[in-house]
Amino acid sequence: MILEQADIRIRPGEQLAFDAAIQRGIEQVISKARGYLGHQVFKGIESKERYLLLIRWETLENHTVDFRQSPAFAEWRAIVGPFFAVPPTVEHFDLLA
Amino acid sequence: MILEQADIRIRPGEQLAFDAAIQRGIEQVISKARGYLGHQVFKGIESKERYLLLIRWETLENHTVDFRQSPAFAEWRAIVGPFFAVPPTVEHFDLLA
Repeated sequence: MILEQADIRIRPGEQLAFDAAIQRGIEQVISKARGYLGHQVFKGIESKERYLLLIRWETLENHTVDFRQSPAFAEWRAIVGPFFAVPPTVEHFDLLA
Repeated sequence: MILEQADIRIRPGEQLAFDAAIQRGIEQVISKARGYLGHQVFKGIESKERYLLLIRWETLENHTVDFRQSPAFAEWRAIVGPFFAVPPTVEHFDLLA
């Protein structure tokens, strides 16, 4: 299992619409992707436009190859991309036992 | 429940020692703090010196007041602080249902 963290900054004042959009995108697109194991979405307390999207994948390639090089990636970005203030910062992590 | 994310950058080449130190600090200090609910530690795949420490607290004040203003904070920093390349970036988040 690896963790993808997407550190997302949205445009000010669009939190309610983005809350709905990100949940719809996960339900309709991400959760059906190969190797998807689970996710959590967190909303910033100090930074009201900041969201952390944490997705657990079976392997790194399930995200970087299988998902990103599939049509599903464009579907996902069409749902959430319009809210982004800047491109999200995405990195991957291993769980320290 | 709120999430604390500490985004940690350690000095190069000290991963093995830091892996042990952060686990010792959590076991000896963090896990005994008031309002502590659980944690995860992740190690960067692209950024080998980057760690994400995710701690779930009952309330924001359990971290910002009860923990940070207690002697436990200095104990924790004595264990993990020597490895930091820069001060960690710490923010808090609500779970989006």
